[in-house]
Amino acid sequence: MAKETVEGITVKKQEDFSEWYQQVIQKAELADYSAVKGCMIIRPNAYYIWQQIQDYFNKRLKALKVKNAYFPLFIPERFFQREAEHALGFKPEVLFIEGDQEGERLAIRPTSETMMYDSYSKWIRSHKDLPLRINQWANIVRAETKATRLFIRTREFLWQEGHCVYETEKECDKETLLYLKEYEKLCKDLLALPVITGKKSEKEKFAGAHYTLSIESIMPDGKVLQMGTSHNLGQGFARSFKISFLGKDGKEHMPWQNSWGVSTRLIGAIAMVHGDDKGLILPPKVAINKVVIVPILFKDSQEKVQKKAKELEKKLKKFDCLLDDREGYSAGWKFNEWEVKGIPIRIELGPKDLEKKEAILVRRDTSHKSSVKFSQLNKVIKTTLDDIHNNLYAKAKKELEKKIIEVDNFSDFKKAIKGNKLVRVAWSGSRDSEEEIKDKAEGAKSINMPFDQPKKAGKCFHTGKPAVGYWYFAKSY
Amino acid sequence: MAKETVEGITVKKQEDFSEWYQQVIQKAELADYSAVKGCMIIRPNAYYIWQQIQDYFNKRLKALKVKNAYFPLFIPERFFQREAEHALGFKPEVLFIEGDQEGERLAIRPTSETMMYDSYSKWIRSHKDLPLRINQWANIVRAETKATRLFIRTREFLWQEGHCVYETEKECDKETLLYLKEYEKLCKDLLALPVITGKKSEKEKFAGAHYTLSIESIMPDGKVLQMGTSHNLGQGFARSFKISFLGKDGKEHMPWQNSWGVSTRLIGAIAMVHGDDKGLILPPKVAINKVVIVPILFKDSQEKVQKKAKELEKKLKKFDCLLDDREGYSAGWKFNEWEVKGIPIRIELGPKDLEKKEAILVRRDTSHKSSVKFSQLNKVIKTTLDDIHNNLYAKAKKELEKKIIEVDNFSDFKKAIKGNKLVRVAWSGSRDSEEEIKDKAEGAKSINMPFDQPKKAGKCFHTGKPAVGYWYFAKSY
Repeated sequence: MAKETVEGITVKKQEDFSEWYQQVIQKAELADYSAVKGCMIIRPNAYYIWQQIQDYFNKRLKALKVKNAYFPLFIPERFFQREAEHALGFKPEVLFIEGDQEGERLAIRPTSETMMYDSYSKWIRSHKDLPLRINQWANIVRAETKATRLFIRTREFLWQEGHCVYETEKECDKETLLYLKEYEKLCKDLLALPVITGKKSEKEKFAGAHYTLSIESIMPDGKVLQMGTSHNLGQGFARSFKISFLGKDGKEHMPWQNSWGVSTRLIGAIAMVHGDDKGLILPPKVAINKVVIVPILFKDSQEKVQKKAKELEKKLKKFDCLLDDREGYSAGWKFNEWEVKGIPIRIELGPKDLEKKEAILVRRDTSHKSSVKFSQLNKVIKTTLDDIHNNLYAKAKKELEKKIIEVDNFSDFKKAIKGNKLVRVAWSGSRDSEEEIKDKAEGAKSINMPFDQPKKAGKCFHTGKPAVGYWYFAKSY
Repeated sequence: MAKETVEGITVKKQEDFSEWYQQVIQKAELADYSAVKGCMIIRPNAYYIWQQIQDYFNKRLKALKVKNAYFPLFIPERFFQREAEHALGFKPEVLFIEGDQEGERLAIRPTSETMMYDSYSKWIRSHKDLPLRINQWANIVRAETKATRLFIRTREFLWQEGHCVYETEKECDKETLLYLKEYEKLCKDLLALPVITGKKSEKEKFAGAHYTLSIESIMPDGKVLQMGTSHNLGQGFARSFKISFLGKDGKEHMPWQNSWGVSTRLIGAIAMVHGDDKGLILPPKVAINKVVIVPILFKDSQEKVQKKAKELEKKLKKFDCLLDDREGYSAGWKFNEWEVKGIPIRIELGPKDLEKKEAILVRRDTSHKSSVKFSQLNKVIKTTLDDIHNNLYAKAKKELEKKIIEVDNFSDFKKAIKGNKLVRVAWSGSRDSEEEIKDKAEGAKSINMPFDQPKKAGKCFHTGKPAVGYWYFAKSY
């Protein structure tokens, strides 16, 4: 859509990250603001990414024996009131529909635990019905009070939410971790995003959960983005929703449950982590077009070059190759447009290249140029796309590691937080301590406690009491 | 989920269609009622069907250069007021969110014309931006006042809605028909459902459309189900939403638009059309499991048979083969369960079969049994699945044709409607005439005017005036 993409990104990523992000999202046509405050339009370039996430994850779900279903958007208010902590946690975020609906006030889905578990209580009778593993792809609505940001914080977003029921605590623990590991793998394999994995603090866990595991990453502005969570819900919801099963021992038991989700927020993370001053850089596996051909046209050779460009477009069809043969735009203008939009590989084809039976291949991630014989194009593109994926991941991992700093006292902690670091500390994990840290250190929050821990955690950097382990802290979205 | 499926369908399809349908949907675990009146739970067996429809149609959309996107669930009330006919048509069906949202009353998406076209007015500047073709997979909410029925009429359902913009009326006409033909093909190729295609009357067209095309079919109870529509919206929305483009001639023009959709209603049609007294019959291409193996176990041969059954399960993995080796259920009980659920092929394996290196293959559609050598199983299953698809389609087509009757006067018309027929008549197409027909002939509605028409339509069966063509009439859902 010509008009919007005439100009490139006008600020540097390092200098005004917030403005840079907004320009990238809009100029790469990933999303747009709508007439409704806080609600975004997910445009085709971004929806394609979401579809790739869905396809990838649906395959994993099938292998893990999780089945997709769909539960209603409307949830009776009284359902939320059943699980006390859950109700309290979600209260400020829930929107309702207008008017009394046959004596009920109906919430618009902020998460589906309560709606699903009402059905689970009818469907589950015996240990033969367990484990029950259901996932839902759905839209979610929350009354956001904070400032909104496209993909990161909006009133409506898309997500998947998995909801499983098990006979034993052990199975539930095992699979709560399993789904988190799946998210880590999805981020690495599909999106080239490194994450840190671990357990959330008591203060930061999901409302109503026994415990919450998370994947997180620090963005270039030094704020951590929570990218996915997996909650062991314990037996609290089972108790509130009267879910029970007849065990192999002939007695009634209460099952264990988990729930887990990732959302369109991942698309925001891709833009933030991989993008550069020229615009978006798409990880090849989620790029709607992996290759764009820009023919370099001169009057006397125009026809020949155009003909060959069309030939190449066909030949490279499996890369969803785009041929930009629009008239009235210079080659330079086109280069700029596709750089803003983050297409992984650009092929330039001019009359001299044609003579040599080759084309120029330009990588979006490194700007590296090389000449490639026509006969080698398919092969070279394939390996280059793999290489771009690996390079993006390695670069992001290095950035993440560079931001980690370990400290052992509150004074250094505050300095590190101020310096936008991901701070590693031995910590007690208590709610009171976390409240105080937040107050005194620029709103710093605990991110999570990584799974790999040294044998001894030593003393808490804040309270001086024995630490429960090493934790990450940072400012966060 | 053991408890619910202990018993089969307790009524005959011919005798109490409405009760039969409800039992099939619930006992085959396609859908369930939720705690919110009129909102259904789409269970995994049905959601799988919806995913197959999505996969099939997404491939077609890609070929037709339509891109997927996602627009907000909330729509400002003032948007509905812009297109007068659209506003009037949707008024009784729209639900709103509670409370004033920064000075706006917000509707919960009943259809997305207005929300999308507000963005289109910003995105479209030049003829270079056209055609613009966007599709959305989304949930839709309508304040249903009539009695609800799972999949057929609910307060919330899932659908896709395509919204395209063209430079000329001709292109718009052409593609409005193209998408309808795609729906016809989807129904035939994927769901084994024959449909009738044609143009809706003035009274029955979409609110705000220039004209509406539809696919429809008559259900076994004699009521017609509208299964998909494609609307040429003319220039009305472009006018209301100020969408215009700079043409090749350097002047501003108003574009032409269409919108088109199918919904989870198609799942209801599958159950209604193909099911029998034993339960659901799934068209093979949308069956979550295409084959179920039921081992016939006797004490002395149990181990051998179980081992072979597991081997076969692996061998037939590409058919998403299910091995029902649950203990504590008789083979007969299992046969019954999988018949209710509509799995296309059952494989029975007993000790005698094992000796002969063969298994019994039972078709769900015809109940036909045959012995198949193990070495031939893969091949025979593949051709049998194709054959089941073709047989279901042929049978449904015959049923549809049997219900069509042509009459030329109002007295015979009333008799035919009373007899639950799909009545073909030469008709004038006027709104007044349709109102009167509805009043005097048990609520009969015009269904559509087929594309294939004889050269001369003759006289209208109702008014005696010149007819515009032959139309279908029937009672309808």
